Amino acid sequence: MIAYYNGHFCDKAAIVISPDDRGFLFGDGLYEVMRSYEGKLFELELHLARLAYGLDQLRITGVDLGQTGAMAQELLLKNSLLQGDATIYLQITRGVAERVHHFPAAGTPPTLYACARRLSPNRELPLQGVPVVSVADQRWSRCDIKATGLAANVLASQAAKEKNAFEALFVRGGFWLEGSRTNVFFVKNNVLRTAAADQFILHGVTRAVVLRLARSLGIENRESAVTTEEVAQVEEAFLAGTTIEILPIIKIDGRTISGGQPGPITCRLRDALRHLTAGLRVS
Amino acid sequence: MIAYYNGHFCDKAAIVISPDDRGFLFGDGLYEVMRSYEGKLFELELHLARLAYGLDQLRITGVDLGQTGAMAQELLLKNSLLQGDATIYLQITRGVAERVHHFPAAGTPPTLYACARRLSPNRELPLQGVPVVSVADQRWSRCDIKATGLAANVLASQAAKEKNAFEALFVRGGFWLEGSRTNVFFVKNNVLRTAAADQFILHGVTRAVVLRLARSLGIENRESAVTTEEVAQVEEAFLAGTTIEILPIIKIDGRTISGGQPGPITCRLRDALRHLTAGLRVS
Repeated sequence: MIAYYNGHFCDKAAIVISPDDRGFLFGDGLYEVMRSYEGKLFELELHLARLAYGLDQLRITGVDLGQTGAMAQELLLKNSLLQGDATIYLQITRGVAERVHHFPAAGTPPTLYACARRLSPNRELPLQGVPVVSVADQRWSRCDIKATGLAANVLASQAAKEKNAFEALFVRGGFWLEGSRTNVFFVKNNVLRTAAADQFILHGVTRAVVLRLARSLGIENRESAVTTEEVAQVEEAFLAGTTIEILPIIKIDGRTISGGQPGPITCRLRDALRHLTAGLRVS
Repeated sequence: MIAYYNGHFCDKAAIVISPDDRGFLFGDGLYEVMRSYEGKLFELELHLARLAYGLDQLRITGVDLGQTGAMAQELLLKNSLLQGDATIYLQITRGVAERVHHFPAAGTPPTLYACARRLSPNRELPLQGVPVVSVADQRWSRCDIKATGLAANVLASQAAKEKNAFEALFVRGGFWLEGSRTNVFFVKNNVLRTAAADQFILHGVTRAVVLRLARSLGIENRESAVTTEEVAQVEEAFLAGTTIEILPIIKIDGRTISGGQPGPITCRLRDALRHLTAGLRVS
C-alpha cells in the first residue's frame, strides 16, 4: 500500500512514526476520513473546512491544506482506487519534539500522514437497519475538534460491539448527542432532529449534507438534541457518517423502534443521499 | 539514547512506531513518568498499581508489569543514569491493528515503549514559588486514567506558558481540581486540602505521598476540592508531582497569595518530601 508521509508518497510499511511524535505521546493531533466514489472525493471542501477549523482551534500551524485534494487523488491513483469506493484517512499532529506539554518551538514541522483503502459497503444494512445502544458521554468538551484522543470513543464502540450493536450513542446530561463514530438523527412528531453543532458534537460532513437534503425535500428539521424522555417516543432514527452514509436504526438499547423497519423519512433521506453519490459515480 | 521497545533495548532513534499503532491513531494508551534518585526508583509500587488500574480500566491485556521495575533499572544503567536524578517515561498502547474503533482481535500484542532522561531539578523554584493560572477543565470525565489523550492538557499548559505561569489549574463546575501535569494542594484555615481521588483527577503518586506525610506530621488534611469562592481565601497553595516534587504557589491568576512567599505548611511538606528522597539518595 502506498501512503503519504510528510510530503512524500512511499510504501506504508516504510513509514516511521517517531516515539516523540506528539500524536503518539499526547494525542496532539487531528484526523479526517474522506470518501471517494469512483475516484471522486465527496464534499472535499467541507472536510477541508473542518480540518482548517481544527488546526485553528488546536493552533497547529505549517499545514498547506490547498494540497490536500491533490494528495488524496494521488493516493487513490497510486493504490488503484479510482474505480469503486474508497476512504482516505488523513492525520496531522503537532510534530516531533522532546516531551513537554506546551507547544514545541515555532517552526517545528507538523506530521502529515495519509493512506487510502478500498471500501466495500455493506448493501444490506442500509435496507435492514441496525441496533444501537446508549453510553454515558465521557469525552472531553471539545468534540467539535476532530482530535485523535479517542479513548472514550474506543471504549464506547467496544461496549456496543459486545452488545451486538452497530454503534454506541453518547448521552450527556440527558441529551442524546451522537455516536462514537457517526452522527445521529431522530424523527419525532414528523420533525427531523439532530444535536446542534456546538462544542459537544462533531460537525459531521454527512450530517450537514443530510440537513441540506432535508431542507431541499421539505422535511421539517430542527438542530436540537433529543432527550432520554423523548427517545422513548421517536418514530424513526438513523446514523449518518462518511463511511456508512445513512444507516437506519431499528433498535435502541434493546427496544425495537420504527416497527423494526427503516422509517419513511429515513428512507427518503437515505435514497436522496444515494442519488447524490450515484451522481458522483457516473459524472 | 538507549530506549526500550516491545521487549528489547535499542537505540531510541531506531524505534519505529507504526502509523497503525492505536497510540498514534486513537490515543488508545497509558503512560507513567517515574523518577529515580541516584538510581533508586521512587514509589515504584504506587506507579505500578496505577498502571495496573489504568490497564484494567482500558482493558488492555498482555502486559507483564512484574518486569517494569527491572526494565526501568536497566534503562538507567544503559544510559549512565545511576548517578543523579532521572525520569523514566513508559507508554503502553493497545498495539498495532487496522483502524477500527473497537478493540483489535484478542492476542494483539500491546506496544510498550520506555525511555529515560536526566533530570536537573531547578533548585530555586521550590524556594521561591511559582505563579499559576486557572483554565476551564475541558478534559474527559476519566482523568483517573493516565491516558495519552492529552490535548486538553496541552492547550492548558500552553495557555499557562503564554501567561508566564508555571502551571494551569483545571476548574470544573467551580471546583479547582488539579494542574495540567501536577496535582494541587491548598491550605485554608490551616487545613490542607486537595481534590478527592475520584474520576476527575489523576491519583498522583506524589499527591499520595504528600497526604501520607501530612498525616505523619499531624497536619490536618481533607480530600475535598476548594471552590472558586474558597480560592480567594486560601493561605497557601502548592503543586505536587513526580518531576517537580513540591512547588509552592505564590500567585494565582495574577493575585499574590501567601504574601508572595512559600507558606509554613507548604515548607514543612516540601522539606519532609526532600528528606524522604534524600534518604533514597544516600541509602
